[in-house]
Parts: sequence; C-alpha cells; structure tokens
Amino acid sequence: MTRSQNLAPEGDWVQEGWTHLSGLVDTDLPGWSRVGFSEQDVAGRDWVAQQMRQAGLTTRVDAVGNVIGMLEGTNPSAPAIVVGSHSDTVPGGGRFDGIVGVLGAIEVARTLRRAGIRPTHSLMVVDFANEEGNPQGVKLVGSRAAAGTLSATELAAADSEGTTLADLITGAGHQPDAVAGCRWKADDLAAYVELHIEQGPVMEEQGAEIGVVTRVCGISTFVLDIEGRRDHAGTTSMTKRSDPLCCAADGILAVQRIAAAGGDSVGTVGELTSASPLTNVIPETARLTGEFRSPELAGLKQLQAEFDAEAKVADSRHRTRSTVTWGHTDAPAIMDEQLSALAVRAASAAGHEAFRLYSGATHDSVEMSALAPSTMIFVPSRDGRSHCPEEWTDLADVERGIEVLTRTVLEADAAL
Amino acid sequence: MTRSQNLAPEGDWVQEGWTHLSGLVDTDLPGWSRVGFSEQDVAGRDWVAQQMRQAGLTTRVDAVGNVIGMLEGTNPSAPAIVVGSHSDTVPGGGRFDGIVGVLGAIEVARTLRRAGIRPTHSLMVVDFANEEGNPQGVKLVGSRAAAGTLSATELAAADSEGTTLADLITGAGHQPDAVAGCRWKADDLAAYVELHIEQGPVMEEQGAEIGVVTRVCGISTFVLDIEGRRDHAGTTSMTKRSDPLCCAADGILAVQRIAAAGGDSVGTVGELTSASPLTNVIPETARLTGEFRSPELAGLKQLQAEFDAEAKVADSRHRTRSTVTWGHTDAPAIMDEQLSALAVRAASAAGHEAFRLYSGATHDSVEMSALAPSTMIFVPSRDGRSHCPEEWTDLADVERGIEVLTRTVLEADAAL
Repeated sequence: MTRSQNLAPEGDWVQEGWTHLSGLVDTDLPGWSRVGFSEQDVAGRDWVAQQMRQAGLTTRVDAVGNVIGMLEGTNPSAPAIVVGSHSDTVPGGGRFDGIVGVLGAIEVARTLRRAGIRPTHSLMVVDFANEEGNPQGVKLVGSRAAAGTLSATELAAADSEGTTLADLITGAGHQPDAVAGCRWKADDLAAYVELHIEQGPVMEEQGAEIGVVTRVCGISTFVLDIEGRRDHAGTTSMTKRSDPLCCAADGILAVQRIAAAGGDSVGTVGELTSASPLTNVIPETARLTGEFRSPELAGLKQLQAEFDAEAKVADSRHRTRSTVTWGHTDAPAIMDEQLSALAVRAASAAGHEAFRLYSGATHDSVEMSALAPSTMIFVPSRDGRSHCPEEWTDLADVERGIEVLTRTVLEADAAL
Repeated sequence: MTRSQNLAPEGDWVQEGWTHLSGLVDTDLPGWSRVGFSEQDVAGRDWVAQQMRQAGLTTRVDAVGNVIGMLEGTNPSAPAIVVGSHSDTVPGGGRFDGIVGVLGAIEVARTLRRAGIRPTHSLMVVDFANEEGNPQGVKLVGSRAAAGTLSATELAAADSEGTTLADLITGAGHQPDAVAGCRWKADDLAAYVELHIEQGPVMEEQGAEIGVVTRVCGISTFVLDIEGRRDHAGTTSMTKRSDPLCCAADGILAVQRIAAAGGDSVGTVGELTSASPLTNVIPETARLTGEFRSPELAGLKQLQAEFDAEAKVADSRHRTRSTVTWGHTDAPAIMDEQLSALAVRAASAAGHEAFRLYSGATHDSVEMSALAPSTMIFVPSRDGRSHCPEEWTDLADVERGIEVLTRTVLEADAAL
C-alpha cells in the first residue's frame, strides 16, 4: 500500500447500496424505520449477507442474528481485524446511523479485492443485531452476545405486553437459547474499527471532515417505580393526595437539572406510564424510565447518587414511596490509542486532518473494546441531527469515511 | 304516607342484589371493574332490567344503552319523577359508586309496591350508560344523551387505537346514530333524585349518616399538546434540547400548584404520552391530559386561565411549542333548593338529621339538573376512599339512604 494507491470506494455501489438498504422501511412507523428483529430488519440483513458474499466473503448468521462475513488472511492463525456496525434503526430514525458503517465495512472487502490486496490478518465484516435496543430496554444486543455480556436476565426482559427479548429474537428466526455460542474469544481478535456518523454537531461546527473517537460515553439506565394512593380525583383534596404522577414529574425535571449541572453529561426520560389513564382517578402507581450518559465512570456514579437523592426528596414532597432500579451500566469505553493513531495516519494518507472527539452516542464499539483494541471513524452529521428522519450526511463525506476505514484496516494489518 | 309507615328497604334483596351486580367483573382488570359498554357492563344492565320488570316496571333500553323502567302514576299526564344512577365502574374501581343508586332506585319501586302505594306522578327508574367515561375522554355518556348534550364530536372522539365512542356504543349492541332519540323533554320531568356514596371523607369526619347535596363540582378537561424537537439523546447537549417531556413535567406540577392554591378546587393529570418511549431519543411530541374541578364556574375559568399561562412559561423554559385544548366544560350544577328541602324532610321522617354538602365528584345529576329540579342523597364512604377496590359503605348506611330516597320520592310526589 502506498499513499498514492487508489483505495477510494466505488461511489456508485455506495449510493445504490445506501438507497436500497435505507429504503427497506416499516411503513407503519414514521421516518426511516427498520427496527431490530422486524421483517424489514431481517430483509436488510439478508441483503447485507448477499452483498458480503458478492464481495468474496464467506458468511454466517449467528444465534442472535449477527451477520458475519470472513475474508481469510494470508496468515490464518493471526487474529482477525473486525470492521462493522449495525443496520437496524430506532423507530422514526434516519438513513445513516449504522448503515454507513455496514456499507463501509463491506466496501473495505470490495476495495481490497479491486486493489488486489490480500491482508495478512483475516478480515471479519459484521452487521451487529439490534444495536438500537428494543421496548425490552436492551441495547447493543448483537455486540453484547459477541462480547459475552448478554445476560439471561436481559433475554427474559419483557415489554409492556409481556413479549421478551428472547421472543423477539426467536420471531426473527434466530436461537436465543444458543446465544452462548455467539461469544467471540479476545485472542482471536486483533482490532475493531467502526465507521459511523457523528450524530452530533461538533464536527460540523469545527469544519472537520474525519473524526477519530477518543472515548464513547458510559450509560446508566433506570426505572423509577412510584407508589402513591389510588383515590377519587374529585373528592380527594390536593393536600391529602399521594399522586405518583406528581412525583414522576419531579423525577423528569430532576433528570434534566442533574444532567445539565454535570458538564458533558446528558440525561433523558423515555416514558412515564401509570396504572390509570383516566383524569378522574389518582393512580396507585407510576413508572418512569430514563438514562444518564457521561464520558467518565465517576461522573455516571455521581449522576446516579444525585438522582437517588432527588427521588427521596420527591417522595417526601408528594407522600409517595419510590424505588430507583439501575439497569445495566455501560462504562465509558476508551478507544485504543495505538489503533486511533493508525486511523489518524490513515486519514492523513487520504488527505484529511483527523479531528479527535468524544462520542455522546453509544456504539457496538463499547462492547468490542472489551475484546480487542478498538477505534471509531466519524463523518459529520448535518446540523447535528440524528435518530430523526432529518438525519443527513453527504455521500461524499461517507465515501471519505470509507476510504479512511479501508486505509485504517491496512495500517492495522501492517502494524499489529 | 305517614312518618310511622314502614318504608324501609328489603335488606336481603339489597344485599343479594349488591353481591350479584358488584360481582360481575372483568377479571382482566384489577379491582371491581365493570367498565362502560364492556361485556360485564352489558350483563349487569340485563340484570338491572330484569329486576326492574320483577318490580313491576315496564322497561326499555334506549339507543345509547340507558336502561329505563316506568311505573305509571295515577295521573299519567303529570311529569315523571326520575330516580337513578349508573352501574358502570372505573377500571380498578369499587363496589358502591353508582350501584348503590341503581339498586336504591329499583328498591323505591319495590317498596312502593310492598306498601301498596301508587304515586300520582309516574316513576322513572334509570341506570345511565357509562357515567364514568372511557378512554375516548367522554363522561356521563348516558345522561348527556338524555339531556341532549352528547355531541357528534364526542361520539367521534377516539382512543389511542382509533376506536371511537360510537364504536364502543355499537359494540355493546346499541345505536349511536340514533342518540338524538334518547333525548328527554324537560316538560315531561318533575324531579330527579339520585342516591350515591359520598366518595369523600367529609360525612365520616362529621359523623353524618345522610347527606343532601348543595351543588356538584364543575369540571374542565384539557389536552396539552407539546411539540419539541426530535434529537439523539446522547449527542444533544442539555442546553440545546427541546424536550416535550420536560414541558409536560412542568405541566403536571402546574396542575398541582394551581389547584392547591384554588380553595376547594382540585386538578388531576390523566396520562402523559409521547412520540417515543425510548430513552435514546428526545421525542418530537408529547401529550398530557388532565382536568380541573371547582364548585364555582368563575373558579373554573380562573384555573383555566392560570394553566394557559403556565403552559406558556413551560414553553419558554424548554423551547417547546404547546397548545392547550379545553374539552367540554361541565358547569357546577346547583341542586334544587325546594327538592333538597324535601329530601331533608324525608331524612328527618326516617329519623336522620341531614347534612348539606358539596360534591367534588361529578354525577349524572349534573346533566339532569338542566332538565328538572334535581338533588342527591349521599351516604358515607369509609376513609373517604373511592374509585379504588377499598371503596366501602356499610350496607346499613346504604339501606338508610334507600329509605330516605323512597321518602323523598313520596314527598316530591305530594308537593310537586
């Protein structure tokens, strides 16, 4: 490989692939929705596997639905370099989050073939299952299965109608009972590199074309269960009520206040449900779901402690009894410095100055970083919008990102 | 009729009827649920009609599901005296709200027959359809149809799944297209008297056995529709968000604060829904439903104006755009002084000192008071609890109330 070698992606294939995959949407939902384990998600992954095979990869689908393509290296006993992302979306999402990294990873294999390069390390191309999570509250499903962190508790987590994550996985034709077999061994992996859109405004504000991530946010999710007292809404005076919705409202504003005071932290409420939707009943119970994110584990712990304290204050204010249950905490993931330096060098070889930045969005790289040195390459998001139909990245930016991904793989192949 | 005449209800029948009717419950719901237009509600009304016929009444069911029993008076051209209540419950409700008044109204006819009394005025016994309302947000469905205030807009109101109130009525075997024919003429009615449990703590606190109502609260319902901006929950800093759930939280606390400052007023939120239940998306929109109640129409208007102003403050705080839509306003209903005085006299004849009180719960009497002089007789609620499974009134108190109801009907028959 030399600086002058043509390692640019094939623009037409990228455009056609993007048009096809992003167009496989559930028309019952708003935006560009291809929700994990849905009919459209299954169709998308079938297409991804077909593209992998056409790129010369041997493919398999594991028990959780991860689509994995392999290109054997010249030294089959060397650990593999993994490139990938996810092709599912949030409901009402956009056309770039995840897709760009899956198309990019396939295009790495296609570019190597066009350039006549066979790497020393084997190349694994992955489309991880259901990165975006589900109504059961479990994110990063496929990469957790690969990292061995998808627990039986999470597989048994149910949505409000009693459907479990295991049911979802089974419904898409996979085998939740066999997730243990999805686990990858750290010894088999040399590196993980993921191309993604930034999903935030920083690169656009800085005029950066290529980002190389320093770390990915940690996340703690919570459920606030509130018990009040069911009473008649007309005859129970305001001073005698124990209304769990009022406690929940304090909880929502506490999430906002605590996160705003916490530097780079953010906090968001998912939903508030209650035991009765009627205005003429003070409900017995209510439930609030939410999350905090922080670049530092200590910051996350601090947010948790503050929210626990605020819940107690809200209880005393509204005569309620609430319980905060913290879900799985994803610690912030530090990207590997050596691998990130190779990505910066790869960007430079492609003619771009890499911009180092923190990711407030979580990614499969969080799980992968526990198995192998990992890094991420970002391309800019227009106006910082993401998880919405307005999400946009120019395809020229996507192509730039794919070339840097390809060059990073080759830098890693040479250096590791 | 004399003070000494035995006009006490037949305790065994009251107990057996109460056991049977309150036991017709939807076991898929908590508490003692017989929700309007449900299978159990239809079964309950069939039983009510059968009991009316056994009491010697001729029965009919109108187009909205009101069950109406008639006992012709000695002067068939005189306007009728109406007694009634409702046999539906809120989801998760108790065994006394509504039932007591329906059983009591039937027992009035049974007692007159036992006592060999045929009134001058005809007696109409009514079990009003769906007093408690529905997910479509319409309360007092049957009495509104009878008063001619059930609008086409209300019949077309839909729940979150698109089912309209008209669909609900059709599903129970009735004819929403023919509700115009349910309307009663004011000229045909001499009085409306309803027996009900208090549903609040005042009578128990005062040691009162019989209450005669002065007025029934007015109610205004609202929908607060909030538009924010859909964004990624990880990458959008707290200072740049436009989160409709935070605006809704301010709305919930504003309802509480405004109502608490408004004397006898109360305010309650029904539910908060949003465009996305996920914690990793800031939703585009949210919707809050709620209500205010006040004994005075001016008080209700004041609460509305204050909530409108608070919604604007919340918008400026959270960069949202919200719209308050006020639903049907039920003005407070003033009970008729002459008829109420007859009820007080009837209580005295039965050996009880009547206690005059305001009703913070709404009732079919609100609609009836626009057609005919109306009053209500209350019996106490243990611990003031209602709209919950713990709702309780001793059957001895219920029997006392029924005797006062019977005596009030006879006082009205003689005086009007």
